[in-house]
Amino acid sequence: MKRFKLVVAYDGTDYSGWQVQPSAKTIEGVLNEELSKLTGEQIVVMGASRTDAGVHAFGNVAVFDSETPIPGEKLLFALNPRLPEDIRIVESEEVAEDFHPRFCDTRKTYEYHICTGRVLFPTKRLYSHWTPRHLDVQAMREAGKFLEGEHDFKSFCAAGAQVKTTVRTVTKVEVEECSSGESVGQEIVIRIQGEGFLYNMVRIISGTLMKAGYHMWPPEHMKEIMEGRDRSLAGETVPANGLFLKEIEYL
Amino acid sequence: MKRFKLVVAYDGTDYSGWQVQPSAKTIEGVLNEELSKLTGEQIVVMGASRTDAGVHAFGNVAVFDSETPIPGEKLLFALNPRLPEDIRIVESEEVAEDFHPRFCDTRKTYEYHICTGRVLFPTKRLYSHWTPRHLDVQAMREAGKFLEGEHDFKSFCAAGAQVKTTVRTVTKVEVEECSSGESVGQEIVIRIQGEGFLYNMVRIISGTLMKAGYHMWPPEHMKEIMEGRDRSLAGETVPANGLFLKEIEYL
Repeated sequence: MKRFKLVVAYDGTDYSGWQVQPSAKTIEGVLNEELSKLTGEQIVVMGASRTDAGVHAFGNVAVFDSETPIPGEKLLFALNPRLPEDIRIVESEEVAEDFHPRFCDTRKTYEYHICTGRVLFPTKRLYSHWTPRHLDVQAMREAGKFLEGEHDFKSFCAAGAQVKTTVRTVTKVEVEECSSGESVGQEIVIRIQGEGFLYNMVRIISGTLMKAGYHMWPPEHMKEIMEGRDRSLAGETVPANGLFLKEIEYL
Repeated sequence: MKRFKLVVAYDGTDYSGWQVQPSAKTIEGVLNEELSKLTGEQIVVMGASRTDAGVHAFGNVAVFDSETPIPGEKLLFALNPRLPEDIRIVESEEVAEDFHPRFCDTRKTYEYHICTGRVLFPTKRLYSHWTPRHLDVQAMREAGKFLEGEHDFKSFCAAGAQVKTTVRTVTKVEVEECSSGESVGQEIVIRIQGEGFLYNMVRIISGTLMKAGYHMWPPEHMKEIMEGRDRSLAGETVPANGLFLKEIEYL
């Protein structure tokens, strides 16, 4: 039995998230079905990140075991023509039999995309959160700095999530202002890199950085939010459609 | 009676183009219906450019006459909440009674978006043409230079189009390579500005510039194509989903 690793990109718009659910279309469900047809075996993939409904990915990771004679690096060419256009295998390779996509040291990078201005351009609407109000990117950057390092992120974890510890390490928070000319306002990308994330953490951090961007809170208020260890102190959970799982690096 | 001008952005994916057609969803059809409901009058807009099925716009222009008491600059706020998310009014204003969106001197800017690489990222698929092969952007730029100025563009006009003259002025052809990190290959934008365009002209020019980018033709071959005045000499008409009507300037 061989183990294969797939790097998977998808447009989450039409999916009920990654994880298989009865009578709902999911990324994992489609992969299981098409890999089973391709190999003639009953395939169940293990995903690195169970992204929520509507979240997009450039590089989620799925692993599965198979006896298929198709060489690892050719798998993507065999699988892509069978997949719907909103799921694509970007890379494929054979890995060690004990490689596990979740129980490994990883560094994940997420992006949260925001457009500002009086209207949201229609061709941005599926892939960007929108606010009519201007965001002070410099204030967001300063606020983001308080999150870097090892901290207790309990205030940035969806209430009720079952986890042993809410301590996580965020290695980088960047806030970038792009200008593609495809917007009447700003196009902002919040990029957060870390070793493990709590449930909804990136969306809650993004909602909180937006409050700093509106000057509702000074950047240093992030420290108080973090020390309070209380979800209600942070900003809102911003919508799924602006969130992209960009990359998972195995360290 | 007052005349109003709207700058209209849309995602053309789900539309049979701009122009009203029986039993097909069109941009013009939706605007007529919602403007009629908003004003209580029978509104029929005049569009500046009748974009094809699947083509997107950041700034098409529509004009209509109405007795509405809504001030021109407020119209967008009244109309946008009634429109589907894939159509947005970006600007609105009252204009002179004899302003006509087509019979004016205008400069139009189109963009054609291309991704290269072994896969097309799912979140790019609705807004970009894809080719697995690398494109030499410098060769495309050199080829594009031969199109600037006043020329007979008969070779770049869909066969059978009824026009008095195929002479047009192209003021600028730019080929830009972007890197958003959302692609395994290149992200290329062809930007073409001109005073009037022939049917399918931007899509045929883009398909022809791609041949130069593949090194199938040397850049200077553009001159021969143009002088031949024959559609069959140029490259293919590339798909609608990569095309954006970016801006219409009234001179």
